[in-house]
Parts: sequence; C-alpha cells; structure tokens
Amino acid sequence: MTGDLLGRRKSALAPSYRLFYDDPIEIVRGAGVFLYDADGREYLDCYNNVASVGHSHPRVVEALTKQASTLNTHTRYLHHSVIDLAERLAVKLGGDLSSAIFVCTGSEANDLAVRIARTVTGHNGVVVNDHAYHGNSTLVDQLSLANHPPGERVPDWIGVAEPPNTYRGTHAGDDAGTAYAEDVRRAGQQLSDSGEGVAAFLVDSTWDANGFLNAPVDYLSLATRHVHDLGGLVIADEVQAGYCRTGETWWGFEDYGIVPDIVTLGKPMGAGHPIAAVITTPEIAASFAKADSYFNTFGGNPVSCEVALAVLDVIEDEQLLDNVDRTGAILRQGLDQLSRTHDMIGTIHGKGLFWGVELVTNPETKEPVPESQVNAIVSDLCDRGILTGINGPHCNIIKIRPPLVFGEAHAVRALDALDGSLGSFARQGGTRADQ
Amino acid sequence: MTGDLLGRRKSALAPSYRLFYDDPIEIVRGAGVFLYDADGREYLDCYNNVASVGHSHPRVVEALTKQASTLNTHTRYLHHSVIDLAERLAVKLGGDLSSAIFVCTGSEANDLAVRIARTVTGHNGVVVNDHAYHGNSTLVDQLSLANHPPGERVPDWIGVAEPPNTYRGTHAGDDAGTAYAEDVRRAGQQLSDSGEGVAAFLVDSTWDANGFLNAPVDYLSLATRHVHDLGGLVIADEVQAGYCRTGETWWGFEDYGIVPDIVTLGKPMGAGHPIAAVITTPEIAASFAKADSYFNTFGGNPVSCEVALAVLDVIEDEQLLDNVDRTGAILRQGLDQLSRTHDMIGTIHGKGLFWGVELVTNPETKEPVPESQVNAIVSDLCDRGILTGINGPHCNIIKIRPPLVFGEAHAVRALDALDGSLGSFARQGGTRADQ
Repeated sequence: MTGDLLGRRKSALAPSYRLFYDDPIEIVRGAGVFLYDADGREYLDCYNNVASVGHSHPRVVEALTKQASTLNTHTRYLHHSVIDLAERLAVKLGGDLSSAIFVCTGSEANDLAVRIARTVTGHNGVVVNDHAYHGNSTLVDQLSLANHPPGERVPDWIGVAEPPNTYRGTHAGDDAGTAYAEDVRRAGQQLSDSGEGVAAFLVDSTWDANGFLNAPVDYLSLATRHVHDLGGLVIADEVQAGYCRTGETWWGFEDYGIVPDIVTLGKPMGAGHPIAAVITTPEIAASFAKADSYFNTFGGNPVSCEVALAVLDVIEDEQLLDNVDRTGAILRQGLDQLSRTHDMIGTIHGKGLFWGVELVTNPETKEPVPESQVNAIVSDLCDRGILTGINGPHCNIIKIRPPLVFGEAHAVRALDALDGSLGSFARQGGTRADQ
Repeated sequence: MTGDLLGRRKSALAPSYRLFYDDPIEIVRGAGVFLYDADGREYLDCYNNVASVGHSHPRVVEALTKQASTLNTHTRYLHHSVIDLAERLAVKLGGDLSSAIFVCTGSEANDLAVRIARTVTGHNGVVVNDHAYHGNSTLVDQLSLANHPPGERVPDWIGVAEPPNTYRGTHAGDDAGTAYAEDVRRAGQQLSDSGEGVAAFLVDSTWDANGFLNAPVDYLSLATRHVHDLGGLVIADEVQAGYCRTGETWWGFEDYGIVPDIVTLGKPMGAGHPIAAVITTPEIAASFAKADSYFNTFGGNPVSCEVALAVLDVIEDEQLLDNVDRTGAILRQGLDQLSRTHDMIGTIHGKGLFWGVELVTNPETKEPVPESQVNAIVSDLCDRGILTGINGPHCNIIKIRPPLVFGEAHAVRALDALDGSLGSFARQGGTRADQ
C-alpha cells in the first residue's frame, strides 16, 4: 500500500515535494500528541507545531464544523467572527498592535508586512538574518536565505546581518548582543548608503532555520533602536515564535523586551487550518491604506476565524502556556543531562517547547556531524516511534518542537529514545540500528 | 447590532478592509444560492463564485468534518488525499498537465507559477493584459494592473498587452483576434529587446477585472504561438475561469482551444476553504525542481484535499456543468432582452454563469455610467434581495457570477430585479429608489 502510494505520488505530484525519513511513513490519524500510521503504529509527535493544540482537537473540529455548516464567505459582508478574532489578538499582543489584516499563510503575512513597511517608510531595503526562513512567496523566498545555496548572489535590496549565534558565530560573551546588533546597523546603513533605504528588519525571534538560537537578551532592543534610527520598521515574524511556543510569554518578541511595529502570525494559529495575520498599529495601517489597497478572498472568512478563536480558547482553558513552561523545564533538564553523557551533542539551543540538539563530531572543533548521519539518527528515532526533524545551516541539529499539549510523560519518552538513539549511533560509528 | 459591529470593525480591522453596498449587510447564514442576514432576510446570491457548489453544501461540510476529526498535517508524510486530488485534476485537465503543487490561495498559485516560468525559461519578463487581476502577493500585485491607478509606472519586467475587448477596445471584427494577439507579441518582443526576456504570458480567460470579455476565438491560440516563439510559457490563470464557470467546458482555456504550459486554480476549488494549485507538465515540474525548492506548510493537507475532492464529486454528481449551460442560456436570453429595453445597457459580456452588464449613459458614445450611480443600482439590487457586484476599469459593469447551483428560477428572479432596478433608475435619473 505504502509502496503503491509512493509510486502514485511520484507521478501525480511535482518533484519539488519531499518526504521525511529514510523510510517515509504513511500517517492516517492524529490525536493529541500522537500520530498513527496505516498499520496502526503510534508515533509520539515531537515535531509538529502547526497542530498547536494537539492533533484533531475536538473543540477545534467542532468550531470548524459548526461554522462551515452555517456560513463561509468573505469579509465584504459584516460578520462578527473576524472582529472577535482581531479584538482577542489585540488584547494578547498589547500596546498599539491593534489593527489586523487576515490572510491564509505565514508567507502571505510576511509578504504583506514587507509591502506595508515599504509603503509606509518609502524605503525599499529589508534587513534579515543570514539563513533565516520567512516563507515561500517570490518576495519572502528571496528574503529567506535558508532557501538558497551559500554564496548565491543576494539582491541589492536585501541586507544580511549575522544571526546572533553565541555557540558558532563571531561573537559570544557579555558584549555579544551589542556586537550582533551592530551588524544589523551595518547591514541597514549599507542599504541606506546604496539608496535602497531601510524599510524593515524582518526577524524571527526563534531563529528557527538556524536551529533555534538563544540570542543575547539585549540583541533585539539594540537592533530595534538602530533600525528605527535608519527610518525602518521592525517586523516580528511570530509564525514560529508566537502562540506560547517559547514559554513564559505568548510572543517571542516579549522575551527580548521589544515592541515591534508589525507582527505576523501563522502556523499554529488555526491548528492546521490555513489562517495567518498581519497586525500593526492603527497609524501604520492607516498610512498603508491611504497609499495602497489589499484584499484577500479567503482571509478572515468566518470558518477560519472561528477555528482561530477555538485555538485561543483551548490555549487559555487548558492553560497551555503553563504546560509549555512545565514540560519545557523537563526537556531543558533532560537535554542538558544528555549533553553531558553524549559527546556528539555540541550544544542545546532552545526554550519552552522548541529545542535544537546540535550534533558535532568533536566538541572542541565543533565540526558538524554530516547530514547523512543526522538523517540516519532522525530516521532511527522514527523507527523508535519518535518524530523529530533536522534543522540548521549545516543540517546537524535535531529539531524538537511538539504540539503545546506535550506533557511530562511525553518528554521523558522522547528523551529516553534520544538517549538510546545517540548511544546506539556512537557505538556503531554512525550506522542505523536496523541496517 | 449592525451599527455596533461597524464601529468595532473599524477599530479592530485595518482600514484596507472595504464593505459592499451603501448599507453594508451582516450575513450570518448561507445555504445553496441564498444568504441570510441577521434579521433573517433572504438574499439571492448572484455574486459568489467561491461558494462554487452553493453555500454550506452538506457533502463539503461532511468531508471537512470527517477529515479534520481524523488528521490534518503536511505533505512530508505520505497520505492518499493529496495524491487522489492531483490524479483527479490531471484527468480533468488532460494532456500533459499532470504534475501538481498545492498551495492555499490563487495568489500563491500565480506567484509560484511565475517563479516556475522564470526558473525554467531563464527569462524575467511577464506579459499580462491591461487591467488584469491575478492576486495580492507583492509579485502578482505588480502584475495586476487592476490594483494600480492608470498612469502609474509599470516595472520594466512587465509587458502590457491590450485586453481583447471588442466592445470598447482598439480592434473589433474578423481580424480582431490577430490584432490583439499581435499586441501580446509586441509586448513580449519589447521585453526581449530590453533584455528581460519573456518568461510567461499570464492570462485569465474570463478577463474578470475587465468585466468579463468575450475575446475573439483565435486570440489565445495566436498569442500562445507568439509567446512560445519568444521562448516564454503560457500560464492559464483559471482561478476565475476554471471549474465549469463559463459553461460547455471545465476550463476557460478550452474555450479558446489552447493547451497552456502551466495552469493555476483557486477560488472555487474548496467552495470557500483555502486551497489552490499549480499544475504543469512533468518536464516543467522537473526542470523547476532541479533548480529551486518549494514547500507550502498548509498546501495539500488532507483536510483541504478532502474538501477539494468533495467539490469535484458534487460538480460531477449534481451535473453542474449541464446546469451552468442551462441557466447560462436563460441568463443570456434574459440579459439580451433587457439590453433591448434599457438604453443604459451598452453591452452584455459573458458566458455560462459569469456575466457583465456594461452600463453607459449613451449607446453611441459608450460614455460609462459614473461609478456612484452603478453603486447606487447595485445597492438598490441588494435592497431588492439580489447580491451582485461592480467590475471593470470604469466601474460601470454589474457583475453576475453566482454559485454553480444557480437554477432557472433564480435566473428569472435576478433578471426581474435587474429590470426593475434599471427601470427605476432610468425614471428617477439616477437616484436610489429609497432615497
């Protein structure tokens, strides 16, 4: 059956499609933190942030069904759902971030946010961190250096700032925040000098595509000051960082004590349903609306909005932010423990329910474990019923980013499997247990 | 209640949002071709193509509910739904159009299609018809001249060809197809001469934003030959034209006897659920995958695909293509009749279940009826319980584009209301009946 599907898939889908794991799995059912394959085998999902409140959450399904049975249309008729959702998010975001535009994907949100920043500032240039990922539209694909081979020419309107990586980057120690922020200033100044100007600094405060970075705490506030001095806006790409992912706070930017000018939301917002948003201040929203128009056919439809409202309800009613903190502490402790017993672990990046386990061949030289071997480990974890992913510019970071309902028992099971898998690979010199 | 909602909406949503009609309506429920407002008032929906198989179709809701209760995840695990859908669409499209990439919106589809064309041809330029609409990403917004004020500078990489408007354009009569196609060649040649080259001719074969055009039958085949001669691809934007909208055939490009290189699908595909697609030949898909990567988090998820499969089932089982032809013939006859009794009707554009009623102050000069007056007529139709829209570069075309389940009785009711409204405005010299 799976073999048959593989063949049909190869014929029907473009070869751009990729499958996870050496032996791809056919997933047919999901519930909470578990996924099940066609043979009924259970997998602990340590990867999928999109199913934010857990797979197939009954309250989300109920909201979806109820609204889809009643009405699904666009925002050019009045409807309370889109207003309710915008109001709820404005309260969650706080400050002046209270003017919303709903779209369908994080890519659409970032594309629109950059367009708003360009329109409002009159500048064209955008600063991003190297190896960031911000989406797949033509515009944000260009801004996502993670999508492009190293050395590929970057368009003149993009300024590239070094990611704030205190493990592997140029700077570490007390002044690292100042030094990395200075690189944002340098990249912005270069755009100003070349005449592009700085429309925005677009930043994901998990630095997901770098494998999660724990940036120096003062990095974003210093960088924000530089960007504002250059006449640009700060766009917080909360597609990864938002919705309690990093614990303690609802939004990643709060961890760094900044108030962005524009916020973009995506993946976890609809627990799998395609909804995303751009939220900014009334002043910026008004300035954009004066100069340009925007309409998104599906964006803000009542079904998507009722789903997004149900996700907010579940996070609040099930106190998932507290759960992230509780389970996050267990993962932190467990991963720290593993890093002491496995030489292969160079460092642990992460916070809350987003962790990156960086694998190196030698802790001194920090030489990355080759991708083929990381892939074998991640495939071995899959064989052990644990779903993770691969991340980072060197493809040497195991990505652990489960649904927000991931609890203590799940964390212990994941840590045990990781311990077993890393131990087995160390003993066998990098071959998969079953090979 | 509606007043309260208006105030809340103004605070919570960006001012980019617009509402239809002089007195906006609060729609709370939909069923088939009917929408209902908060006071229980029924409206005949003559506007919404997105609710392709009718509002809240039980089979679509059932497919949505069933799959959302079971699994919603991305395409990096094997799942049959995305393959089933790709195979079904390949059969419907025919020829070599058999390699699919699923996305969430028509904008994402057109953005990706242009990117594919650029990658595969090595050219940068794109030819579009003037005043076309192709979506809202930064890239396709630039290509959508309908979004921009006349006279705004068009980027160097865009070639603008005159729309094939035989009522108001430069050419009419037997040679019009040749002449309009020659303008596509001229625009493409200019891109070639300037060094941009021709990556694609992106064309919506309803010319929706022009108010629907019935182009000369040989236009697209001649234009396709020119574009291919210049080394470019033809992208059929079927977001409006596809899914039986124009009758007789499933796809708009079939009306013009061409086989495009890339097809994009959107709006009607999920009957309101955000799903869209790019479908091309295996050769083009392979050539793109070799040079570039693409992944869409929500695109092709099992819930969206099961919804899209249900929409295909309903169209087939309820024989909606036949219904489009049947009701389309009634609308054609009725609108022709109205155009003989109302001097204000300059011409009728359209086919199947997509019609544009072009209003002029004088049939000889073709001076467009001012937008304020067209808006008053469309608002009057709304008061009469008939939902339509406004279209065209002069905002003087009443747009009639109902769900595919629109039947004979609905057509008669819509025609009667239009007759009444136009008659009332002619008598009152352009003021709304209730003012």
